[in-house]
Amino acid sequence: MSDINSKHSALLTDLYQLTMAQGYFHNNKLELDGCFYLFFRDYPFNGGYAIACGIEQIRQYIENFHFTKEDTKYLSTITGSNGKPIFTKDFLDYLEGLKLEVDIDCVDEGSVVFPHEPVLRVCGPILQCQIIETAILNAFNFQTLVATKASRICSAAKCPVSEFGLRRAQGFAGGVWASRAAVVGGCASTSNVEAGKLFNIPVSGTHAHSWVMAFDSELEAFRAYAKEFPNNCVLLVDTYDVEQGIKNAIIVGNEMKERGEKLSAIRIDSGDLTWLSKTARKMLDEGGLPDCGIILSNDLDEYSIKSIYAEGGIFSGLGVGTKLATAYDQPALGGVYKLSATKMHDEKVWNPHMKVSESSQKTTIPGVLNVRRYIDDNGKLAGDMIYDVSMGVDKTCTIVDPMDILRQKKLGEKNYSDLLKPLFKKGNLVGKTFDTMHAQENAKQGLETLDETQKRTLNPHTYPVGLERTLNEYRTKMVAKLRGIS
Amino acid sequence: MSDINSKHSALLTDLYQLTMAQGYFHNNKLELDGCFYLFFRDYPFNGGYAIACGIEQIRQYIENFHFTKEDTKYLSTITGSNGKPIFTKDFLDYLEGLKLEVDIDCVDEGSVVFPHEPVLRVCGPILQCQIIETAILNAFNFQTLVATKASRICSAAKCPVSEFGLRRAQGFAGGVWASRAAVVGGCASTSNVEAGKLFNIPVSGTHAHSWVMAFDSELEAFRAYAKEFPNNCVLLVDTYDVEQGIKNAIIVGNEMKERGEKLSAIRIDSGDLTWLSKTARKMLDEGGLPDCGIILSNDLDEYSIKSIYAEGGIFSGLGVGTKLATAYDQPALGGVYKLSATKMHDEKVWNPHMKVSESSQKTTIPGVLNVRRYIDDNGKLAGDMIYDVSMGVDKTCTIVDPMDILRQKKLGEKNYSDLLKPLFKKGNLVGKTFDTMHAQENAKQGLETLDETQKRTLNPHTYPVGLERTLNEYRTKMVAKLRGIS
Repeated sequence: MSDINSKHSALLTDLYQLTMAQGYFHNNKLELDGCFYLFFRDYPFNGGYAIACGIEQIRQYIENFHFTKEDTKYLSTITGSNGKPIFTKDFLDYLEGLKLEVDIDCVDEGSVVFPHEPVLRVCGPILQCQIIETAILNAFNFQTLVATKASRICSAAKCPVSEFGLRRAQGFAGGVWASRAAVVGGCASTSNVEAGKLFNIPVSGTHAHSWVMAFDSELEAFRAYAKEFPNNCVLLVDTYDVEQGIKNAIIVGNEMKERGEKLSAIRIDSGDLTWLSKTARKMLDEGGLPDCGIILSNDLDEYSIKSIYAEGGIFSGLGVGTKLATAYDQPALGGVYKLSATKMHDEKVWNPHMKVSESSQKTTIPGVLNVRRYIDDNGKLAGDMIYDVSMGVDKTCTIVDPMDILRQKKLGEKNYSDLLKPLFKKGNLVGKTFDTMHAQENAKQGLETLDETQKRTLNPHTYPVGLERTLNEYRTKMVAKLRGIS
Repeated sequence: MSDINSKHSALLTDLYQLTMAQGYFHNNKLELDGCFYLFFRDYPFNGGYAIACGIEQIRQYIENFHFTKEDTKYLSTITGSNGKPIFTKDFLDYLEGLKLEVDIDCVDEGSVVFPHEPVLRVCGPILQCQIIETAILNAFNFQTLVATKASRICSAAKCPVSEFGLRRAQGFAGGVWASRAAVVGGCASTSNVEAGKLFNIPVSGTHAHSWVMAFDSELEAFRAYAKEFPNNCVLLVDTYDVEQGIKNAIIVGNEMKERGEKLSAIRIDSGDLTWLSKTARKMLDEGGLPDCGIILSNDLDEYSIKSIYAEGGIFSGLGVGTKLATAYDQPALGGVYKLSATKMHDEKVWNPHMKVSESSQKTTIPGVLNVRRYIDDNGKLAGDMIYDVSMGVDKTCTIVDPMDILRQKKLGEKNYSDLLKPLFKKGNLVGKTFDTMHAQENAKQGLETLDETQKRTLNPHTYPVGLERTLNEYRTKMVAKLRGIS
């Protein structure tokens, strides 16, 4: 299963991670531990939640992490402005022998997550934490984006959605992981055969326009297809003329019926999908095929799907490609990875750190963080509390919105759980990642615990996420100190 | 060099390519040859041209194409609605022994190309042409998009641009090939170390905010970095306070000067870049460092770069990430792959095919196509003619705009060349692909042959691309016939 990324060496990182690493190496900072946390600042697609994804690829990446001789040989060829190598032999030897010793705690694949809260935490030698930053961000940012987009599309669709964006996806592996993330987010299947094999997820698909064009007539092409795949027959009716295509599909569907078979569905891939779907439904019903489904495709997303419903369009399944596999309306999630504490390796206590910024959006949270999620008596989510593991949670159980400290909420619920769970300890896998269908189930269950208003496609009700009260006070004081105010 | 995709099996395709293939296999269509062509319909980013990219990955994919026993074993597990396998043993045995016999003709990597014209042509057994469609489209669509975006950004920048989008790119390999495409489009370097190794392209990068936070003070962090990398020293000045950061950089820059070294540049990664760059330039000049460069980064694209210039911002280099690596404002190119002719394998003459559509945008071009590019006496491009290889070019040498047949242009230039050149013959590599820097040079030279007005960022002057006159007439008649009008 790990073929797709285990071939990527530890070089899959930004050069500055390696220049900084050499700097730490030569400045007696091998014994300096850092604690970093990953979070994103804005709701993707202006929605009310995100579906966390990418953890499985992160597991594969960390488990396979190592520098080969070939890698360090390449690094030795990188030169500075004087034409001399920038990396020193002692450092490259060190990289070749490097074994990760980091602790990684993170959310489960498929979890419902929100802006500002830590979704993954890496603690360990600062040099190591930095080298792995880029790949971790890449995996989380991209897959969370696609899983979230899929969740929005599937919510709008209320019927099985098949992902088939590989031909427009960003790269081969981008397409393969996008297919997996789409299924985590709720898609019933993918057209991507390699993703099907690698992740054991359902694949689907029938034929293209070219199949019809390769025969002397559309009717002949449909008959040949029905004969070949009597148990998986969906006919694409818009190669030449949709109404004529539907008529031909009805002929073939009735021939199949006589043989005791069934035409599963027709597919319409162009034109006005609302109008054509209504026409098709009427024709199929009148043509004796009331059980034959209608699958629509052509640049669909959550908005066009809602509009087809609103206008009375009728369909039993959807195919979604480009808009899903590339997260077209927002093709990047701005997840970041920030240093929040340091200590010397043999010390027990962490020293909180933070980056202040003119914008309070960009001011980070200090400490070794986790997120406590409170659940109310009806099994619904009450709020998420970001807290420092060593400070703990004070008895008032209050969260404060760091963007607006006047917004506070007391979380008195008895049921809660911590979102970040150990995945690696000292570089060794200790937790579990979820297979794709299990992650899909996680997402489904998570969404059921959110209120409908929090899942609205546009302008949703904001879910409460805040800093634990004492952490917020500590952070406010720290900002004042860093600005020289107190 | 081929590690990144050779691991992708022939399963990297849509399921329907394989169901259609089995249909062809069982319907005596193994001897049916198809001719397909790849084109895109719209100018990416509303610009006036595109930079073709993806050919090198297509070469790797075709050279490595094969179905393993593991692949066919997986295919044998895919079932239809009755729970029985959809693929038959004879077909799976056939796939396992399949060797590609297709001819592929295509443009050179880095070529300037335009909507509607064929950029790649595949002729051969129709079954084979279909299986490889998805991966070919994926590679061309994504990399052409990023190379074109890079070209637009570099045009606006007029200074060296470094690509560093890996952390926000769509997948690991998406990031690696995006880095390559960015360099083809004109970037001077990438932060992506793996791309540097695989494609032998320049890498660059210095340090992050976390480096500063790992020391007791910013000044100490800057000194340590300058000492470690005296020949590659760029200091990031916005960890705490930009003006204080610049002051510390000036201290360190002057210390370097005393040691006979040089602070290459400072980098500003937040805040108002125009205002800060002007402030920084003044401070560096007054601080005795007039040669120290200023590198700007933070969500840049061609539009924000133009705006910084217009407001008098001063910089010597730029770092561009998310907006480039994901082609943020248009994350997919709608390239398609359409059947344009068929013949039986032992026949010599191709039968043109086309798909008609309500929209003339979506009506395809019949025949075995190539593109002739005419060059005027000043070495500038005069127009591109799409012609059928067997019909040739008539003596009037006229192109007709298929979207508006009243728009015609006579191309009398003596200099011309055909854009599609043989890459594979009967599945064997016969042409050459270009290494990254050579492809970058192709793009650069190609852009020099375009008029400035055709390269404008917004609302550019449209470059003439049309159908050869006799091909246009033939196509018009064929549409009438397919619609039953004549």
